[in-house]
Amino acid sequence: MNVGEAGEFRLIERLCRSMPLAAPGLVVPVGDDAAVIRMGGEEDLLATCDMLVEGVHFIRDRTSARLLGRKAAAVNLSDVAAMGGWPAYLFVSLAVPGDLPVAWADGLYQGLGEAAERFGFALAGGNVSRHPDRVVVDIFLLGKVESGRALLRSGARPGDRILVTGSLGDSAAGLALLDHPSATVPAGIRERLVAAHQDPEPRIGEGRAIGAWGGVTAALDVSDGLLADLSHLCESSGVSARVHADRVPVSPQSREAADALGKDLLDWSLSGGEDYELLFTVPPEQVEMAIRLLNGDGMARATEIGEILEPGQGVLVLDEHGKTMRSGASCGWDHFRPKLPMGDTP
Amino acid sequence: MNVGEAGEFRLIERLCRSMPLAAPGLVVPVGDDAAVIRMGGEEDLLATCDMLVEGVHFIRDRTSARLLGRKAAAVNLSDVAAMGGWPAYLFVSLAVPGDLPVAWADGLYQGLGEAAERFGFALAGGNVSRHPDRVVVDIFLLGKVESGRALLRSGARPGDRILVTGSLGDSAAGLALLDHPSATVPAGIRERLVAAHQDPEPRIGEGRAIGAWGGVTAALDVSDGLLADLSHLCESSGVSARVHADRVPVSPQSREAADALGKDLLDWSLSGGEDYELLFTVPPEQVEMAIRLLNGDGMARATEIGEILEPGQGVLVLDEHGKTMRSGASCGWDHFRPKLPMGDTP
Repeated sequence: MNVGEAGEFRLIERLCRSMPLAAPGLVVPVGDDAAVIRMGGEEDLLATCDMLVEGVHFIRDRTSARLLGRKAAAVNLSDVAAMGGWPAYLFVSLAVPGDLPVAWADGLYQGLGEAAERFGFALAGGNVSRHPDRVVVDIFLLGKVESGRALLRSGARPGDRILVTGSLGDSAAGLALLDHPSATVPAGIRERLVAAHQDPEPRIGEGRAIGAWGGVTAALDVSDGLLADLSHLCESSGVSARVHADRVPVSPQSREAADALGKDLLDWSLSGGEDYELLFTVPPEQVEMAIRLLNGDGMARATEIGEILEPGQGVLVLDEHGKTMRSGASCGWDHFRPKLPMGDTP
Repeated sequence: MNVGEAGEFRLIERLCRSMPLAAPGLVVPVGDDAAVIRMGGEEDLLATCDMLVEGVHFIRDRTSARLLGRKAAAVNLSDVAAMGGWPAYLFVSLAVPGDLPVAWADGLYQGLGEAAERFGFALAGGNVSRHPDRVVVDIFLLGKVESGRALLRSGARPGDRILVTGSLGDSAAGLALLDHPSATVPAGIRERLVAAHQDPEPRIGEGRAIGAWGGVTAALDVSDGLLADLSHLCESSGVSARVHADRVPVSPQSREAADALGKDLLDWSLSGGEDYELLFTVPPEQVEMAIRLLNGDGMARATEIGEILEPGQGVLVLDEHGKTMRSGASCGWDHFRPKLPMGDTP
């Protein structure tokens, strides 16, 4: 068997079987958006990493180095946001071909620097290596959260309501538009959707608002696609879930792009991936408060999209008549599936 | 200008100019073996990362996956050792081609697991991605040290003595033997030197012994080569240094390999790189104690090899008559130089 057949998650399982997973101070181990480390002070440390490989996660000619730097930061910032924390220290491992223009590296650094200024973290380390022919950027981000207050994936209980910030599917719509440069959609719509894909907005402020509050039972970020990530949350919490398809928030822009391209908007919003919105659960009596907390200036609004169920049912999607139209979580992003965000097949 | 012309260190400088380098709790920022983060408890956190790229840092056919896993851990463990700390939490970002056998990934995991068991750290996170055609392993390691007691590069003072653990040049000798499989050296010698290159021993116990003691003024690990790393130490401390070539510890095995291959042993020991020994400075009256501290069972012995000088003189190498035979630090490892550890040119 090769790793492509095994897939990302089976490889991670095998890694977890090969190494000790418990250590003093490691209060949340492998399996959440970030590890949580307790050092004895007022704050816990959050730790997460994500790698971007040229030709797999991005095409060098189809995004700018600056936007790639912002996105490399954003995908990690999103993990810290999903834990209810704030970013503190960033480390970058960079491998680049010797003939890469220095201006390109400067662009990447500029993008990382913009994220650092905006979200208030510092560069704390890293290394630069040669790669024969590709750019590889691996970001390691340390964040902080009030001790014992990290939002985990594991606390959802039957009866809890499921909420999501912002709109889903914009990133997938942007990717589809990059793949179809001649599609006839207004320039403003194209620009907004491509930006959702290339320059996603990590929900740090939103994560802080619902984290500090204390009413959230479980949370994670939508990086692999709503159904895939909801399924991760359900696995961690030992529950099932039901999503009402007609309540999943979509933008008018992605609706227009789906019409123009003849695509199914629901596919994008349920399984598109790379939305970097926050998906979280609260007890029914807390829904109103959760929505109010995310009603602030410049914040992504929260929408109630479903309910947590007793275990054994998986993740169900209901149509507007309450009929199950999909079940399972077969359609998320796996790094070994031949799909390519931020560009087309290399 | 391209990144190959700029080189590793100029790229890192440019990155450092693009991002904030200071943040609350970051008591030792970019530029030491590891960042030091203060969280308010009894221990500080150490953080370091290092990436291995197939074809640049290793050749897949010339090392086993298991040894590569051990080495990927060791190069990071060595940074924690150089700070006087102990390892706690490891994160691994892995990018692999889809056709890589799962058995190879298992071998890598086994190597990481062996290092974890031996040095007492846990897997705390990571991710697995697809790479079109190469293996890339990036390790992020968090360690701990008693708060305020991390060994830094920056404390060396004129008059301090320079010491190094173990012997230098064995790794370079092992690499040279890998490049010359037909060289006539006894099998036992070949085995030991190749092991020094492919399976280096991080000096965690030694780092703890001299760290807990408190007599060390500056320390780092020898990864780029003695002269290059001593030059890093001098830059950080604002001093110069003098090394006595005839005191640099070399193994009888590397001497035999140099003879067999017609190579200059001093080149290997001064500039070979990847030794992962500890290089440190102490006031003259502490030399004896430092040597005694590293006299324990299974520990690498320390050797006094030179002195710290007033600034402005760079790094000098003296022959046995006290005559300067080399100066400067031009001959260290740079990731963009066409030298390839653990194998030959791809």
